[in-house]
Amino acid sequence: MTADRVNPEPPERAAVAALADDFLTSLRDWITIPSISTDPAHHGDVARSAHWLADALRADGWPEVAVWDHGPALPAVYACWPAEDPAAPTVLVYGHHDVQPVDPPEAWEHPPFAGVVVGEELFGRGSSDDKGQVAMQLLGVRAHLAATGAPAPAVTLKFFVEGEEESGSPHLADLLDRHTADLACDLVVFTDTPLYARDAPTVNTGQRGVLGAEVTFTGGTSDVHSGRVGGGVPNPATALARLVAALHDDDGRVRLPGFYADVVEPTAAERADHAALPFDEADWLAANAGGAQAVAGEKGWSTLERVWVRPTAEVNGISGGYTGPGLKTVVPREASVKLSFRLVPDQEPAAIAESLREFVAAHTPHGVTAAVVLRGEGTPPYAIDVDHPAAVAVRDAVEGAFEQPVRYSRTGGSGPAAVLHATLGVPVVYLGATLPDDRIHAPNERVVLPLLLRGAEAAARLWRSLPERLS
Amino acid sequence: MTADRVNPEPPERAAVAALADDFLTSLRDWITIPSISTDPAHHGDVARSAHWLADALRADGWPEVAVWDHGPALPAVYACWPAEDPAAPTVLVYGHHDVQPVDPPEAWEHPPFAGVVVGEELFGRGSSDDKGQVAMQLLGVRAHLAATGAPAPAVTLKFFVEGEEESGSPHLADLLDRHTADLACDLVVFTDTPLYARDAPTVNTGQRGVLGAEVTFTGGTSDVHSGRVGGGVPNPATALARLVAALHDDDGRVRLPGFYADVVEPTAAERADHAALPFDEADWLAANAGGAQAVAGEKGWSTLERVWVRPTAEVNGISGGYTGPGLKTVVPREASVKLSFRLVPDQEPAAIAESLREFVAAHTPHGVTAAVVLRGEGTPPYAIDVDHPAAVAVRDAVEGAFEQPVRYSRTGGSGPAAVLHATLGVPVVYLGATLPDDRIHAPNERVVLPLLLRGAEAAARLWRSLPERLS
Ligand SMILES: [Zn+2]
Ligand SMILES: [Zn+2]
Repeated sequence: MTADRVNPEPPERAAVAALADDFLTSLRDWITIPSISTDPAHHGDVARSAHWLADALRADGWPEVAVWDHGPALPAVYACWPAEDPAAPTVLVYGHHDVQPVDPPEAWEHPPFAGVVVGEELFGRGSSDDKGQVAMQLLGVRAHLAATGAPAPAVTLKFFVEGEEESGSPHLADLLDRHTADLACDLVVFTDTPLYARDAPTVNTGQRGVLGAEVTFTGGTSDVHSGRVGGGVPNPATALARLVAALHDDDGRVRLPGFYADVVEPTAAERADHAALPFDEADWLAANAGGAQAVAGEKGWSTLERVWVRPTAEVNGISGGYTGPGLKTVVPREASVKLSFRLVPDQEPAAIAESLREFVAAHTPHGVTAAVVLRGEGTPPYAIDVDHPAAVAVRDAVEGAFEQPVRYSRTGGSGPAAVLHATLGVPVVYLGATLPDDRIHAPNERVVLPLLLRGAEAAARLWRSLPERLS
Repeated sequence: MTADRVNPEPPERAAVAALADDFLTSLRDWITIPSISTDPAHHGDVARSAHWLADALRADGWPEVAVWDHGPALPAVYACWPAEDPAAPTVLVYGHHDVQPVDPPEAWEHPPFAGVVVGEELFGRGSSDDKGQVAMQLLGVRAHLAATGAPAPAVTLKFFVEGEEESGSPHLADLLDRHTADLACDLVVFTDTPLYARDAPTVNTGQRGVLGAEVTFTGGTSDVHSGRVGGGVPNPATALARLVAALHDDDGRVRLPGFYADVVEPTAAERADHAALPFDEADWLAANAGGAQAVAGEKGWSTLERVWVRPTAEVNGISGGYTGPGLKTVVPREASVKLSFRLVPDQEPAAIAESLREFVAAHTPHGVTAAVVLRGEGTPPYAIDVDHPAAVAVRDAVEGAFEQPVRYSRTGGSGPAAVLHATLGVPVVYLGATLPDDRIHAPNERVVLPLLLRGAEAAARLWRSLPERLS
């Protein structure tokens, strides 16, 4: 809130406005590609999406563009645009071009892969998570160049847009290892997180990690008649329910052994920032929670803390036995539960996985066989020091573009920030302009277009300011 | 074990043998009709099955045959063949011609509706439960008439074969009310239970009742991202697991309030009969329990007692959230469980239903909405006094036909015996010749054909003996 008071129309803003129509046309086209990475039937679409993005970068004038399509990872896109000044810092922008499944498809008001615009909103799977934000970053670079009039950006820019984020980025570490030189940088700008709210823009400082697992309890080799043997043999579905029930104590704390041992609580300053954000329980539920009727969770923590800085165990899906129409009185032969654990610094997915295996073994009754299948290695949690100059630079750029005060927030969702941090050895900051109520991972995903334009302006401002901030 | 020692080839046995080929051809034909009453898509087949049976009865010479097809009940078949002696007792034979679903169809070694014969076994849905036993009863009447040479049976015989047993006989009471005069009798012979074992034939003396219910817990109106709100809102699948886990205490006792209040324990004599039956845990598991690896259940009771004379609560199916391939990190909007409660005398389904509603209400967390849907009114339990002359007559007839000592047993499964008893005001005895390991309600259902022939002989002997036994 400094220079803009005397210059209400900074060149970045004008440049974004001039490119806005082109931006929207392009993003709508990208959304038509159903790049669902969790569904093998759509892996061809993930490849199409990568090539679409590479073509878009080339059209924007990026001098080096590549699709990394050498398996086992689904195709990722890499681009580099060197700064004129060889001493300028190098920034790697991270995003992803794969999207979540759409089921149930009948719950969508607009087709998920049509890019329908209604007023300020663009609907479609990936409109917010994360094609919209990656497109915003492309626009930010174009606006930066237009605003400065220079032939190259003020920092060396690299884009790395992966195709497996929604599958838990199982090959990210491999990709980073293969391409160490390409991806070398001084800072990662992670572009897959939302603002806190439209009227309370924030800069994100961390994400929870996640570990996914499926636990299957097997009794026999076939379903059996619940009249004939019911009461006389173990019921795997009942056993599984008892396992799931044991995951939490009555205070909502997760009962895996050692689950909280490595948890680092946020500083008093960061907690104060979180506590100062506007929060109305009913509004939060309506905007975020898919019609949930009440908050709930770990005793002793606020709702924002529960979803930002506290670890969790959630059932994502459960199934077993007869689930068709009518009644079928069987003792199921097996039952399965898909679980995900959200993790916070400094919990480690591998340690939590080991703890889960122990916990399952301890809760498997005699006569039942347990199988624990991990969904990849998990994604570690990450948080940046809120006083880091890059974090402050992002906050200032967002404040300038949004013309509002900005606080720090966190994100309950997960992303590979910690892997990028650990592998590349550099800090990670977050720049995002979507909203928590964009219905990502759910039917009717949308993005608010004017926010993406503000976000592109913030990015353009950031590229201009970073050489001085990081010097 | 009396008359047969001096007459090893009683006329009933010869009559059955002469009719055996015809019996098998007919039963195989009936099995080709997929009369699945729980699936509305097969209700036309239930009607076809009823007409098939009516035609078969007419072909056997029954003077009065009717298909009761006046809704809302699925078609039932009624037939009457009066005794020559108007003073002879009237016996109503009960069975059912509807069958269970076949899923998963790929688990069947032989097509479920083809009537494939391999050696002594006939495979197919309904081969054992209950078309095989109803066909056995038709054969028993033919053999009785052939053995006595009389133009009419020694007792007035009525057949009542319903089409909704596998759906819990929801309209049985209606049917009994509409047809009070037709169904009036002195005794019901219930023909839908197995022998204890091939080398230990038994006469059944009771069946557990059953109450089916589906409980659905709803949180929001859509699935939500488990990263964004996970830990901050109730998870209906977790809540449902906690409800299911609470259904049993650590001793395997059901925790519905008042669940055991009306339970009548079996007499010492009956318990002694049960304890005297050959029982090998590994054999029992292999033969009965679909590959289950161990017995389990209520503390303080044997396995046979757990499945015959003790009530239970079982999960038949559970589902909620994302159950497709891969990972989808959602907090499900709802989760459901299909439950069945097996009941013993004198538990009443309506009282258990009320107790379930109370229990669910007490275990529904804040922010979750519960719905309890009952699957019909349930089937009450029933047991006959083991000293009743009709029970003794059946035991003697079975002993004669099987040429082996016979004890009393019970059945863990459920049937409408209690409704027949209560509505018709007469005792119910059981005559069945199938086996507990026939895989009823599961893939690869089969029946052992020589046992059905023995059962038909036992029925033929029973009809001859009953006038004297009941006088
Ligand atoms: Zn994302
Ligand atoms: Zn049956």
